[in-house]
Amino acid sequence: MTLELPTVESIDDPALAGRLQHLLDHKTKPLGALGRLEALALRLGLILGSEAPALTAPQMLVCAGDHGLAARGVSAYPSDVTWQMVENFLAGGAAVSVLARQHGLALTVVDCGVRHDFEAREGLLVRRIAFGTADASAGPAMSLAQCERAIANGMALVRELPGNALLLGEMGIGNSSAASLLLARLAGQDIDACTGSGTGLDAAGRARKRALLREVLAVHADAATPLAALSAFGGFEIATLVGTVLQAAEERRVIVVDGFIASTAVLVAQGLRPRVVQRCVAAHESAEPGHRLLLAALGLEPLLKLDMRLGEGSGAALAWPLLESACRILREMASFESAGVSQRGD
Amino acid sequence: MTLELPTVESIDDPALAGRLQHLLDHKTKPLGALGRLEALALRLGLILGSEAPALTAPQMLVCAGDHGLAARGVSAYPSDVTWQMVENFLAGGAAVSVLARQHGLALTVVDCGVRHDFEAREGLLVRRIAFGTADASAGPAMSLAQCERAIANGMALVRELPGNALLLGEMGIGNSSAASLLLARLAGQDIDACTGSGTGLDAAGRARKRALLREVLAVHADAATPLAALSAFGGFEIATLVGTVLQAAEERRVIVVDGFIASTAVLVAQGLRPRVVQRCVAAHESAEPGHRLLLAALGLEPLLKLDMRLGEGSGAALAWPLLESACRILREMASFESAGVSQRGD
Repeated sequence: MTLELPTVESIDDPALAGRLQHLLDHKTKPLGALGRLEALALRLGLILGSEAPALTAPQMLVCAGDHGLAARGVSAYPSDVTWQMVENFLAGGAAVSVLARQHGLALTVVDCGVRHDFEAREGLLVRRIAFGTADASAGPAMSLAQCERAIANGMALVRELPGNALLLGEMGIGNSSAASLLLARLAGQDIDACTGSGTGLDAAGRARKRALLREVLAVHADAATPLAALSAFGGFEIATLVGTVLQAAEERRVIVVDGFIASTAVLVAQGLRPRVVQRCVAAHESAEPGHRLLLAALGLEPLLKLDMRLGEGSGAALAWPLLESACRILREMASFESAGVSQRGD
Repeated sequence: MTLELPTVESIDDPALAGRLQHLLDHKTKPLGALGRLEALALRLGLILGSEAPALTAPQMLVCAGDHGLAARGVSAYPSDVTWQMVENFLAGGAAVSVLARQHGLALTVVDCGVRHDFEAREGLLVRRIAFGTADASAGPAMSLAQCERAIANGMALVRELPGNALLLGEMGIGNSSAASLLLARLAGQDIDACTGSGTGLDAAGRARKRALLREVLAVHADAATPLAALSAFGGFEIATLVGTVLQAAEERRVIVVDGFIASTAVLVAQGLRPRVVQRCVAAHESAEPGHRLLLAALGLEPLLKLDMRLGEGSGAALAWPLLESACRILREMASFESAGVSQRGD
């Protein structure tokens, strides 16, 4: 391949981990009483390489693209909803817009390949590979060259962004199908278990979707590597996200993974650079059934389980204050010694 | 009894509930895609009686008290830790101090009966009934008159506080024992199932605690009503919290319930005024095993499950942004119509 992928070093550092654990254990609370918030604090300390980790200028990146497979009726919504929702993100009326505003997350929307010609404006980056992917049931969703271009776009995007935390969001009618296909192929899962209702198919619709995806898998039986599978199944927004994940991982940014579709970008990136997942925090577990399998394949435990299935980065935004809390626990809580609090009596 | 309890009207309002559901269903997202955040938005709309609910001046109230039973070795920490932690809350170094600061929650610490004479200062209210409760294994933890005075204190406290949301916190070495006893008695649960490690007893300590609590239950076999049980088992901080819950319920404030001990205050208040729980949001499920049983008894589903077991209001503070998000979804998200987004195609 022509694309040069970043180097992703291990962040394992037993000495730092020991110091972080010591700090946590001496905060004014019973040992381990902050539960998973402590594990999160430890993880963030390791990613940022600091005993006093501070998250700066968090970036919510919503990558959007259209899918040729959508014409085969895999979604409850028409493809036009992709560009309409991009407009909604930019106008501030979508869930992710509202939540990003609440938490002070800089929101950037990226047209990675929407079937629409957007007017340039603040908050929108046009990195369109094509007006939607090709129909994956008839051939590859994109060429390998397109796939690499999208990944390169994602890498370049992150290089330009400030801060040390990246929140992943996406939009694309039909992209839960691409995610199911990628999960089935790259994690060796049965396609039925990977396939849910997406934006809200009924039982009959879901059955049709499953039958079609099984067919698509068979068409691309030889697409076994991460990049081959990504090219075969799409989409441009997932490929762009793969690039953002790789670049963020190289730079040791904290990567806040959203739902099912965003998580497949991590799965692909992890297939290319196996230490990517060390930098990832799983924001939530989606109600989309494949997400549980996908998080398990990545070894990530979600912070929230609220039966959400919206995408856009909404789950990542919702979990964001927990990351902030974990850092503040490390930075701001007193120790038994500094606060003059007695230790346990046994 | 001499204490006059507030009237707690039902907040059931099918017309408002219908309007809220209609609003949620027409926001730019697949039907129900925000999962439990939508149920939370509906609940907050009903509590605040508004289609555009807004949380104002949220109050974190940390009620502290000491327990005579602590002398019997039910905690891994000495009783002095109660007043030392009160100092830590006020100095800003405790978990709840850090999290309240993060989320702009006004923090008030109430000495409801700590075994210590505090200097008056900003952020501390002294509403001490006595220097700790009596040993519940030898007689009632408090008299009925003391119990009613603590409840009245709690009611008066909330009347003076601004805003429309109350977050419950507590501190008191030994108070997980009081909570286990209240849960066992008022919800008819086996005391062993209600009793955990508290601040971190080992297996032997937990076995001793269980044996002792079984004994205490037997001593107060006739303490069957909410107030009789509360007087028998204590503590002053729980009784004061009962008053805050009742007053907040009458005023239709949103009550954000923290962990195991704070939840027992709701259980008692609910026993006195059965519509209290309509106003409650369960922030999290504690790792303390009784909490799951207690939330089930109250019919509340926790927002977070992060294996925390600290108390102080730390879980309530951590969940707070989710309540804020739920309100913003209702107030700020666009509808399909206003955003010009196509509806589902089927």
